[in-house]
Amino acid sequence: MKFFTEYLELINKEIENNKFSSEPTELYEPLNYMLANAGKRIRPVMTLMACDLFGGDKKLAIRPALALEYFHNFTLIHDDVMDEAPLRRGKETVHKRYDLNTAILSGDALLIKSYQFFEQLPAELYKTCTSFFSKTAIEVCEGQQYDINFETQEEVSFDEYYKMIEYKTGVLGACAFKIGAVISKASEENTELIYQYGLNLAKAFQIMDDYLDVFGSQENFGKKVAGDIYENKKTILYLLALEKGSKEDIDELKYWYSNKTRSIDKIFAVERIFKRLAVDEIALELVAKYNTISFEYLEKIEVEKEKKQPFYDLSNYLLNRVQ
Amino acid sequence: MKFFTEYLELINKEIENNKFSSEPTELYEPLNYMLANAGKRIRPVMTLMACDLFGGDKKLAIRPALALEYFHNFTLIHDDVMDEAPLRRGKETVHKRYDLNTAILSGDALLIKSYQFFEQLPAELYKTCTSFFSKTAIEVCEGQQYDINFETQEEVSFDEYYKMIEYKTGVLGACAFKIGAVISKASEENTELIYQYGLNLAKAFQIMDDYLDVFGSQENFGKKVAGDIYENKKTILYLLALEKGSKEDIDELKYWYSNKTRSIDKIFAVERIFKRLAVDEIALELVAKYNTISFEYLEKIEVEKEKKQPFYDLSNYLLNRVQ
Repeated sequence: MKFFTEYLELINKEIENNKFSSEPTELYEPLNYMLANAGKRIRPVMTLMACDLFGGDKKLAIRPALALEYFHNFTLIHDDVMDEAPLRRGKETVHKRYDLNTAILSGDALLIKSYQFFEQLPAELYKTCTSFFSKTAIEVCEGQQYDINFETQEEVSFDEYYKMIEYKTGVLGACAFKIGAVISKASEENTELIYQYGLNLAKAFQIMDDYLDVFGSQENFGKKVAGDIYENKKTILYLLALEKGSKEDIDELKYWYSNKTRSIDKIFAVERIFKRLAVDEIALELVAKYNTISFEYLEKIEVEKEKKQPFYDLSNYLLNRVQ
Repeated sequence: MKFFTEYLELINKEIENNKFSSEPTELYEPLNYMLANAGKRIRPVMTLMACDLFGGDKKLAIRPALALEYFHNFTLIHDDVMDEAPLRRGKETVHKRYDLNTAILSGDALLIKSYQFFEQLPAELYKTCTSFFSKTAIEVCEGQQYDINFETQEEVSFDEYYKMIEYKTGVLGACAFKIGAVISKASEENTELIYQYGLNLAKAFQIMDDYLDVFGSQENFGKKVAGDIYENKKTILYLLALEKGSKEDIDELKYWYSNKTRSIDKIFAVERIFKRLAVDEIALELVAKYNTISFEYLEKIEVEKEKKQPFYDLSNYLLNRVQ
């Protein structure tokens, strides 16, 4: 995706230019470490994509785009503490490399810094963007809390699952699109449409993520396969299996999910249940369904059709990670 | 202080009216717990005081005043984790009552909520206030980091000490005054003067805090006496003793500060050194000095003299906690 690479170059350059150089270094060095270990940086790309879609000024959108990337990295630093994760993108997590207190305090500073990256906007735009950013940030915290709750919650409904993935990962990407639209003075209708496109794309993406964790090959997916099963995560596959299974299936599934064993038998057994109930296929149908819904929103946006091509490319890129 | 009680009633009522009632309760209930265990709530009072000084609209200032209290409580929740503190104002800290993850995530949410409490301001005011709030919030993080650094830092200069106390505690109070002034459309000069009044008052307050920790009576001060000595804190008394002491004094002081013993002998020995070098008196002189400086800024503010009386009363209240 050429357009993606071009945006990414802009973003990488801007992040490099904004490396934290203030004192005390104990606070800022961990942030440079975290940001140097770049992920896909997809959220700032989304902001710039929306900016171009609506004919906005990328110079004005680039720092807010960074704000979204900083915020995302803040959540990762704190989430890694909460999950006691030793690794992030193949490198030590901040709390492992430094310590718990550094992860907490540097994370806090990064959250505040993300607000500062909206300050070049004129007052009205600044207020619209940061207010929506705050609303989204609160939802991300709530999503993380729902995810934590699910660990000990006996029954999780589909509604609760969808709300959790929407809040924990969906709203931030959708917010990234929306902020690009707002800065470009898109109409309210178009702004809402791109937001809904983002939400539904994220929903499809997250369901795909659940699917790939079990059924993706490690090579293509780049994550520890079936980590969700090891950790008894209440993924869409698990919820579908509970819905579709016989009493025996459910008893077997709940037996395996009743403890955190590293046994490979557990993985194979749970995979067999999922296959038997064809929840892998249903999951892929759900991916297709939310992808279609996202396209419906995209189609309604009132701009020239050609300008939307990058969005179709992005969807394909995000949702066809193995096929 | 009648005026103080009146402001506090307004603030308490507003905090009560804004109790967090959203889902998930696991995220918000700890925040209500933290806020119910009220401290002096002095920062929101400061905002309302500045608002009245400059003839502003308290209805407009009350929610930003709450933002400062929420932000302060966010820092306490995370600081208590970093300090492994079991108690806060005589009650269990959030991470003790709930757990580490709750303290991190609920704290994050409270920081974001504090930004939302500026949203009733019109765009220009909102931008001015939240930009200054972000700058201050970053300084508070930096101050906390300096404080952490001091624990392992062999030599701490007076400049470093002053910067640490200014950032860790001074700027937030000064920011509370400034935001009250900005919302009331005070002139730039007056806004800067009240900010400087706040900074110097806080400096005097913090030096008094160091003094009282060792030389205040537990009854009046309400804190564990000499906790700073137990914890080898590099307070103003310690720095002054290093400056004034003979080689023997310094060796003795460094001997006692080389380990974290709960021995009462340590307290008495260090107190004797402090007394012998009269650093208690020097500390009180410094309190008086910064108090005087703060009054000089206060005097220069261009409003009727009578309106400044609450500020003199506040200074007396904060700086004469035992005499």
